[in-house]
Formats: sequence, structure tokens, C-alpha cells
Amino acid sequence: MTLISKKIEFTCHPFSVERLDLKDGPHPYYRLISADWVTVAAITKEKKLVLVEQFRAGAFEHTLEAPGGIVDPGEDPMIAIQRELEEETGYVSQIWQPLYSINPNPALNNNRIHLFLAKECYLNDPRQRFPDAAEEINVHLIDWAKVQEEVFAGRINHALSALCFLSAKTVLGTDL
Amino acid sequence: MTLISKKIEFTCHPFSVERLDLKDGPHPYYRLISADWVTVAAITKEKKLVLVEQFRAGAFEHTLEAPGGIVDPGEDPMIAIQRELEEETGYVSQIWQPLYSINPNPALNNNRIHLFLAKECYLNDPRQRFPDAAEEINVHLIDWAKVQEEVFAGRINHALSALCFLSAKTVLGTDL
Repeated sequence: MTLISKKIEFTCHPFSVERLDLKDGPHPYYRLISADWVTVAAITKEKKLVLVEQFRAGAFEHTLEAPGGIVDPGEDPMIAIQRELEEETGYVSQIWQPLYSINPNPALNNNRIHLFLAKECYLNDPRQRFPDAAEEINVHLIDWAKVQEEVFAGRINHALSALCFLSAKTVLGTDL
Repeated sequence: MTLISKKIEFTCHPFSVERLDLKDGPHPYYRLISADWVTVAAITKEKKLVLVEQFRAGAFEHTLEAPGGIVDPGEDPMIAIQRELEEETGYVSQIWQPLYSINPNPALNNNRIHLFLAKECYLNDPRQRFPDAAEEINVHLIDWAKVQEEVFAGRINHALSALCFLSAKTVLGTDL
């Protein structure tokens, strides 16, 4: 595909919409431009999965999902997810493992989400928890052994969180 | 959260951007309004996974991903995915199983993606394959046994496809 022109047609927080005109394209394409995202399957020493509950405007509901967020400009994704986990939940880990990076939806998104596994998480000094002013976050723990059941039952209404959890399950198998 | 007002601020194919102003919100939220999506882990009688390769403007590359598409207004998601599988690949199945439905990204999307498993797929009369004019699609088969490896290696650059495959793996285990 040969690009003829591209133009940002709409900008808001936290994305822009870009129009692409292609030489061989049957019509203009529109895509979302945004920074990369990070998310984590954070599992405690007690084999519980750390989840956050927060209002999400897309779904217009409070969702239960993996901790995560946006990678700052120039930031290493591993640093970003360590920061987000602690800011959102107060949990930290000394055992971090990158899983892989993937496009959230290549029909629509230009960015990538970086998936991580954090084992043996523990609650740091609770004073370290300082979500952004915009975020009202509640922390929940569920049994890691039941995560597949929770996903299939629709209680984790976030495809990228679900992908992170099933990917971590693939890595861990029945080891954990 | 109490909604004060909402307004479509940008429209293109295949989504609109809606602005939401909330009583307790620290700032306006923007979300994507679109129809529901469907996708499938389609596995042949020979235990191969049916993939499609096509240009995706978001990632600006040709991706290898699950067959799928958009649910037409009033259409049953099961009918939509059976239609998409046959249109895009020529494959059909008599053994369909809904996995679950989930929000692609509740921070951003208002819609849902419906995930399916189709077993013992076979190539129907090839004349039945008729992708939309806009779609230039190549069909690939990979070993179902290797799908996790392909996801982790980054060769399936589509989080929603990857989720569908790992979810199907969860259901099937080592049975298939």
C-alpha cells in the first residue's frame, strides 16, 4: 500500500483520529493514534490476582480489569507498568516477566500494548498508592486459579486484560 | 457517574467519536461508538487454524489474524461470524460454539466483540468465497498446536484474535 497523504482530523485525550489516503485504497482509512499501553497479570504470594475497579467511559460502567495505563514519552514499558501497578494498587513485585507486545486492534490502532507478568506481589507501604486525580480506583483480589472462569463468565469486561491473564496462564500452566 | 450531555464530535467509517460530559467527571471523556464485532478460532478437521492475511490501516501493515468482522444491524452474532468466515476464507463448519462476549477496551469502546470456536472446518465450494471489494484477503493455515507459540512470537499482531485463540485453547485443552 502506498500512502498519498495523511492528516489528523480530530484530537482529544487520549487519542487522535488520523485520515490516510492510499494509492490503491478503495476509500480513505481512519485510525487512532495513541501512545503505547501496558498491562499486567499481577499475582500475589497468596496466589491472588490483583484487579482494579474503575469507571470506564467507553463501556459507561465500572469495570474489573488488570492494572495498567499509558507509557509516557520515552519511558521503558517495564518501568511504566511497574509505576502503574504501584500507583493504582499499592502492590509491587521483585519478579517481573515481559510476556509479549501486540497491536490492540490493527484495523483501528497504531499503537501496541505490552503485556507483563508480575509474581509474588506484595503490598508496599500503602502511602505509596497515589492514583491520578482523575482515577477513582478500588482494588480487588480474586483467586488466580479462577481467572479463566471469571473471564468466560463476563466479569472481566476488558479484552486486553483477559488476554494478559490467559497469556500468563499459558506461561505458568499449573505451576502456580 | 451522571451524564450531563453527550455529542458525536467526529464520524467516519467504521466508527464515531462521542464526547461525554459527566456531573462528577474531572474532564470530558471521549469514546468510540461502533457496531459489535465477531471473530472465530476456526479449526479444520486436520487440526489447522484458519487465518486471514490482509492490510490493516491502523498498524499500516499486513496482519495475520482471525477471520471476523462487523455485525450488521439486527444480525445475530452467530450468523455474522458464520457469514464472515465463509466470505473471507471459503471455510464452513457444522460445529459452532460461542465462547463469550467482551468489551474490546472499555476505556475507549462502547461495543462488544463476540468470540466463537468452530471445529472441523472444511472448505466449501470455493466459489462461495466473496470478500467485500475493499478486502484483499489471503488465507493461511497454521498448526493449531502451535498457536500459543505464534502469539507469543508476535506473528499474530492482533490482540482480539489472540484472545479468541487462547480462549479456545482454554476450552479445548489438549483434547484437540
